[in-house]
Amino acid sequence: MRHVVSALVQNVPGVLSHISGMLASRGYNIDSLAVGETETPHLSRMTFVVVGDDKVLEQVRKQLEKIVTVVRVDDVSAQNFVERDLMLIKVAAARGQRSEVRELTEIFRARVVDVSADMVMIEISGQEKKIEAFIEMMRPFGIIELVRTGRIAMVRGGNHQSRDEDEGPFEHP
Amino acid sequence: MRHVVSALVQNVPGVLSHISGMLASRGYNIDSLAVGETETPHLSRMTFVVVGDDKVLEQVRKQLEKIVTVVRVDDVSAQNFVERDLMLIKVAAARGQRSEVRELTEIFRARVVDVSADMVMIEISGQEKKIEAFIEMMRPFGIIELVRTGRIAMVRGGNHQSRDEDEGPFEHP
Repeated sequence: MRHVVSALVQNVPGVLSHISGMLASRGYNIDSLAVGETETPHLSRMTFVVVGDDKVLEQVRKQLEKIVTVVRVDDVSAQNFVERDLMLIKVAAARGQRSEVRELTEIFRARVVDVSADMVMIEISGQEKKIEAFIEMMRPFGIIELVRTGRIAMVRGGNHQSRDEDEGPFEHP
Repeated sequence: MRHVVSALVQNVPGVLSHISGMLASRGYNIDSLAVGETETPHLSRMTFVVVGDDKVLEQVRKQLEKIVTVVRVDDVSAQNFVERDLMLIKVAAARGQRSEVRELTEIFRARVVDVSADMVMIEISGQEKKIEAFIEMMRPFGIIELVRTGRIAMVRGGNHQSRDEDEGPFEHP
């Protein structure tokens, strides 16, 4: 089982190494990690995905809460949440294939950000399954390079499931 | 000066802690960090921003290259590159303000991903300055929460500066 954990941490040197060291020394399997600024200048938010059951998650939470620079820990995936990942992908596409790549890009609501004679660079954000599906669609053209941010997640505002703009376009292309 | 460094690393437990420990112990100032999967299952790509002059960057590169699990290190910012960051932001917006928030969201080519009675959640990707500008526009409504991925970057395909779809919409709203 995958848990998306969000930790609010003090933005001080060494905090990342402290946390990643703790996770590594205990053998927790971290799938992706993103560290970014927050609305408060001295705080950063780490989002990571832990693979394991509820017991593993509880251990990770307890270990994190022991670290003085960790302000708060949330298991976002225990609640109703929105999850996003961002990717830049460079695909081999000479003149004859460019329009096909562009069409797929539009269907997935992705954006072309750079073009040269033999390649196209595309930016795509969305749920992991959408990004994985896009990678599969690009594979036949030839993937030159790709880079992903790792997931970020946020709890929804209510208990409802409101329209998620990411859900439509790639399921019914 | 800010350098965007991209390191291709083996996807083994402990690699992140090893790298972040090295950076912390030498006192390098890391501004953001993103770790994501690549086109190759056993390799991950770490993108981080180091603050410092060319000498600092050269030291970081040498230290990274000493680590056996590091496959390759690139100073992306030394070349012609595209840079992206992703943010989820939850803004206080009751019925009377929702249309204003939605209009700004469209101008910035962002997307509303969740709505409830008193808030709107928005997803936005782009260059750092665009994301910073959007945060400033949302501040008067009341930012409830925000989470960012940290930057990712990729070298352009040619020496030209092709159209970057991110450049237009927020500079000339």
